[in-house]
Amino acid sequence: ASSEHPIRATLFPGDGIGPEIAESVKQVFNAAEVPIEWEEHYVGDKVDPRTESFLTWESLESVRRNGVGLKGPMATPIGKGHRSLNLTLRKELGLYANVRPCYSLPGYKTRYDDVDLVTIRENTEGEYSGLEHQVVRGVVESLKIITRQASLRVAEYAFHYAKANGRKRVSAIHKANIMRKTDGLFLKCCREVAEKYPDITYEEVIIDNCCMMLVKNPTLFDVLVMPNLYGDIISDLCAGLIGGLGLTPSCNIGEGGIALAEAVHGSAPDIAGKNLANPTALLLSSVMMLRHLQLNDKADQIHNAILSTIAEGKYRTGDLGGKSSTSEFTKAVCDHL
Amino acid sequence: ASSEHPIRATLFPGDGIGPEIAESVKQVFNAAEVPIEWEEHYVGDKVDPRTESFLTWESLESVRRNGVGLKGPMATPIGKGHRSLNLTLRKELGLYANVRPCYSLPGYKTRYDDVDLVTIRENTEGEYSGLEHQVVRGVVESLKIITRQASLRVAEYAFHYAKANGRKRVSAIHKANIMRKTDGLFLKCCREVAEKYPDITYEEVIIDNCCMMLVKNPTLFDVLVMPNLYGDIISDLCAGLIGGLGLTPSCNIGEGGIALAEAVHGSAPDIAGKNLANPTALLLSSVMMLRHLQLNDKADQIHNAILSTIAEGKYRTGDLGGKSSTSEFTKAVCDHL
Ligand SMILES: CC(C)[C@H](C(=O)O)[C@@H](O)C(=O)O
Ligand SMILES: CC(C)[C@H](C(=O)O)[C@@H](O)C(=O)O
Repeated sequence: ASSEHPIRATLFPGDGIGPEIAESVKQVFNAAEVPIEWEEHYVGDKVDPRTESFLTWESLESVRRNGVGLKGPMATPIGKGHRSLNLTLRKELGLYANVRPCYSLPGYKTRYDDVDLVTIRENTEGEYSGLEHQVVRGVVESLKIITRQASLRVAEYAFHYAKANGRKRVSAIHKANIMRKTDGLFLKCCREVAEKYPDITYEEVIIDNCCMMLVKNPTLFDVLVMPNLYGDIISDLCAGLIGGLGLTPSCNIGEGGIALAEAVHGSAPDIAGKNLANPTALLLSSVMMLRHLQLNDKADQIHNAILSTIAEGKYRTGDLGGKSSTSEFTKAVCDHL
Repeated sequence: ASSEHPIRATLFPGDGIGPEIAESVKQVFNAAEVPIEWEEHYVGDKVDPRTESFLTWESLESVRRNGVGLKGPMATPIGKGHRSLNLTLRKELGLYANVRPCYSLPGYKTRYDDVDLVTIRENTEGEYSGLEHQVVRGVVESLKIITRQASLRVAEYAFHYAKANGRKRVSAIHKANIMRKTDGLFLKCCREVAEKYPDITYEEVIIDNCCMMLVKNPTLFDVLVMPNLYGDIISDLCAGLIGGLGLTPSCNIGEGGIALAEAVHGSAPDIAGKNLANPTALLLSSVMMLRHLQLNDKADQIHNAILSTIAEGKYRTGDLGGKSSTSEFTKAVCDHL
């Protein structure tokens, strides 16, 4: 890719603070001369029958065509007859693995030092099947679905990721002592894949014990792979260790090699439009997108600029105890490039 | 109850380190002249057809008759044709609420200060229904069952507990944005009960966010009530905040007012029989049993002796970085009475 043949990527600025933090990414990419041309898509204001949600068909087509995208927070409007925006994206684009690296940011102190782990969450099934019903009055059930196909796919991705990133250990997180069949199948798939990676240590950790170990000593972990809900819980727990969702990037890997990087924090309507939001999570997510595109020099450059800005400590947004605006922080990152 | 008419209570020393830590409780109760007479029951060595597990029918009858009991760790033998010991106890005795207070122990430093919360876990249904099956090859499902009856019962208990213990806030933990029907019913029941307790603040917190908040600032929480699996996960997470399962007591509340206090850590076969185990969790659990019996003076006395021993820091078992034996620690507690 050169600046004459830029790479096209889809951008969903999203709701609330989304447009401001997306603006921050655009500015940093400009300053770093990243050869990317954005195709911007907003969430619609009515249900698109082809997506059964407020997401437009065109926006999904854009991600499919480009193969890469970046997404800000989306707030699903309340009401009936349409699906959650986040879940629709995962489903429609087959985003089967949610990858969230979580590492201590030098200079930003929390109770934990040297956290450096990656959670890889199965993103399409499990407790998120949407299959629920009332059996009789006062008795309801939800189905957790685990398939061999989705479990193998996410396990393959986890080991592939571990190997590609020089990581040494993959821990499969489960509750197979209780859910013998579902979590049991998940583990069986992980074991099958593990055999193909003799250089990577494989272990299985029960989720309750995992959470206890994470708060006692998170440096025990490296790559964690798990079914949907456990991934939801553990990735947020891990974000808490290093300061919260405002600081943790994420990237969703989908069918056909799609990568949709995403800030997983909320849309913070209370501070939207006030130039107060912290763009770090979206910026770090955009770095994951660049790595996916193998634009590693640009990725390193931007990553270092973000980390230096945070380490320096002079420009910090309110959520980190500072007084800087979104644009001041963004400018500082650009200056560090 | 006087020493002439002692209260009978069932004691399951359990496996591994169980007998040693149970011995510790017996010694402390003797030293404190607690008017309790133990009925000791061990796990059998073959399946009792009446319990479908290695638990004897007589031992369950003993708890039912006495209404109170104390339980060490039980390791379910591997094999087919019998049920998990812990799950059998919960099921057969209708132990519907698992109560785990979790508080920082003065003098035992962790990353967190001033933790003081109580998790109350629905203990009979949810993800622990045991209903699982293969749909087709490679596709398995587990059923999560939520009933109005069990949800109301545990919610009632949580608010009752909060009120009786001067606590101000009950947080219901859920994932009703995804599991609208099951967790939705759970929340509906909590709301109904909350209306009867206008002096107690009621809030609802999504489980992923809850875990993040717990690691960032656990002092935000007071009493937490939740479905089975979330309770399993969050109670262990919380234990991790204050040092681990070796330090956290628990008590199960069952049908007909049964109370079975329990150390929830494992049986630690590696150190069993070596006089190395930390009896704190079982001792603190026995204090919960005493409170249930309204033997509050004895409960306070023993509780203070345990806390003073830990605060003093002279006698600590290996898991807390000390060199004391189980019996040295126990003697120190007795000396503090
Ligand atoms: C918003 C919600 C549906 C979502 C989830 O539960 O997956 C969020 O918590 C996340 O982790 O992306
Ligand atoms: C041993 C296991 C079945 C049990 C559970 O999952 O409930 C344990 O983790 C607990 O919390 O008591």
